[in-house]
Amino acid sequence: MTKIALIGFGVVGQAFAETIRDKKAMLKEKYGLKAEIVAIAGRSKGSIYDPEGLDLELLLRTFGETGTLESYPRGKKGLTSLETITETGADLIVEVTITNVETGEPALSHVKAALSNGKHVVTSNKGPAALAYKELKALADQHHVQYRIESTVLSGTPAINFASENLAGHKLYGVKGIINGTTNYILTKMEQGEKYEDVLKEAQELGYAEADPTADVEGWDAVAKIMILGNALLGGELKVEEVERKGITCITPEDIMAAKSKGERIKLIAEAYVEEGIVKAKVSPERVHLSDPLAGVSGTLNALTVMTDGLLEVTVIGGGAGGVGTAHGLLSDILAIHRTKS
Amino acid sequence: MTKIALIGFGVVGQAFAETIRDKKAMLKEKYGLKAEIVAIAGRSKGSIYDPEGLDLELLLRTFGETGTLESYPRGKKGLTSLETITETGADLIVEVTITNVETGEPALSHVKAALSNGKHVVTSNKGPAALAYKELKALADQHHVQYRIESTVLSGTPAINFASENLAGHKLYGVKGIINGTTNYILTKMEQGEKYEDVLKEAQELGYAEADPTADVEGWDAVAKIMILGNALLGGELKVEEVERKGITCITPEDIMAAKSKGERIKLIAEAYVEEGIVKAKVSPERVHLSDPLAGVSGTLNALTVMTDGLLEVTVIGGGAGGVGTAHGLLSDILAIHRTKS
Repeated sequence: MTKIALIGFGVVGQAFAETIRDKKAMLKEKYGLKAEIVAIAGRSKGSIYDPEGLDLELLLRTFGETGTLESYPRGKKGLTSLETITETGADLIVEVTITNVETGEPALSHVKAALSNGKHVVTSNKGPAALAYKELKALADQHHVQYRIESTVLSGTPAINFASENLAGHKLYGVKGIINGTTNYILTKMEQGEKYEDVLKEAQELGYAEADPTADVEGWDAVAKIMILGNALLGGELKVEEVERKGITCITPEDIMAAKSKGERIKLIAEAYVEEGIVKAKVSPERVHLSDPLAGVSGTLNALTVMTDGLLEVTVIGGGAGGVGTAHGLLSDILAIHRTKS
Repeated sequence: MTKIALIGFGVVGQAFAETIRDKKAMLKEKYGLKAEIVAIAGRSKGSIYDPEGLDLELLLRTFGETGTLESYPRGKKGLTSLETITETGADLIVEVTITNVETGEPALSHVKAALSNGKHVVTSNKGPAALAYKELKALADQHHVQYRIESTVLSGTPAINFASENLAGHKLYGVKGIINGTTNYILTKMEQGEKYEDVLKEAQELGYAEADPTADVEGWDAVAKIMILGNALLGGELKVEEVERKGITCITPEDIMAAKSKGERIKLIAEAYVEEGIVKAKVSPERVHLSDPLAGVSGTLNALTVMTDGLLEVTVIGGGAGGVGTAHGLLSDILAIHRTKS
């Protein structure tokens, strides 16, 4: 049995719990995975622990009614996140707290505590992966457990595992892609003749963009994700200040029309590559020819092109956000761990 | 150590041997895989077996000079393909003989012999996978070995493992894609104003199309591949006569222009889906809107869209033919077996 402790109970955490509730029988039958969530800790939602495994149907109902995990009628309450990681007998930690790409905290401490205690970590949290991938991977190796980050970029759309496992055996020269859905939505709409300000407002109303859109439109979100890709896939140790960054706020309708007249589209492209043995990365709006698969990536879709010696360019296109997609990315990582267990 | 016997020594077999020669040190260092090709059997090129492992540098040189495997100065010669499978102590068989989608032979017998003797099979051969996937998978399970077929569709571009492993945990509703490069090349060129007959001739000169183009342009190649996808990913047992099939010979420049005027492209789409619990499949030219990632797949590129409950649609785009790409698909399967070993 795989005993899971879930750290973080926002949109992704709740979607993950729902996914396990709905797919528990299938996971056992199809993959031989007996998955039990034994503990959950939320930042403002309390915590709950039952060594026998939580009844997720009941838990999601009582949480839905009260907004706190501690309304669950059984089990132990009041553990901190760190206690939930180290003292619940869980052998796999799903870390889905809110991303902080400046300090990585509190996720960084969570991941370190888990790995140091010999527990696998599966996470969608960009902070630790962007800031400390190499260190965390080494810590995982040292303790013979896995640190898996499929959901940190492109949510559940395969990216990390795609490049490192599906394409195992290839030499990777670099990756480039459209890894921020908000800006791609804005650029797609601007191509249809809408103005930047109007589209941004619309995106905010639809929930695609934050009230403060800086992280997306200035490229900071893409920077964090390309750091993860460069570090995890190319072996880099990128620092945020080393990533060239240009957002989309400078793009005018005229730029877009000029590109269109040449059979091109403007996309916010994030790229990581190896130059003279050093991993480099940049994020900037670029003209992409219509014959490039990235040109066909519209709206909030994300995409990643992997450049290899065996296949030249291979591209994955899919959704890049959302609780259900991210939850499935977490689940695919859990199943990958399950497959590699002896 | 993984002892490999290679059955078939045409374009793919030679590219595979070259890939192992070039990547042997990397495979050991990066993945801990000690891969040795201990035997090779070709239909018209003789056979060679050395229990200590073949010196691939030497083998490829002597083969290049003489056209026969038996000019290798050491080892045992004259084994048949079946003897090479069963009597060389290989624990993994790479089957890359020429595809026959009517009988599956001789590959079908090769695969059965290997699995029955407790040897993993990694193959690019479409015949056995299209005709007998379920039976071969059951045979593999029974003998606690793996039957891996990543390279049978989209050559080395992840498709089978993408859908079954990267997207593990998802419910798959169906797959659709552009899985024949020749017809996609012809349709792409026709969009640029060229005539079917002219493009076909050009494709034949470039080596993209066979002298007898029927298998490609009438959709038979796509039928075999969609049968594999439907059977391996959706659990079907499709027979060739159950697959609706329409080729591209009926497509006129007018059809293509009419589509273009509506923001659409005509693509030969292969699709497998589940209807009332039954797996069905069809191959036919369809209008694809430019907002669909499949519309952006140009020239000889292939693509596959997987429809799932967790992510809606996820698409992979990449090369679909060629020795080096296919060899890397075979290698990725070997590494997947290596990862799942206890």
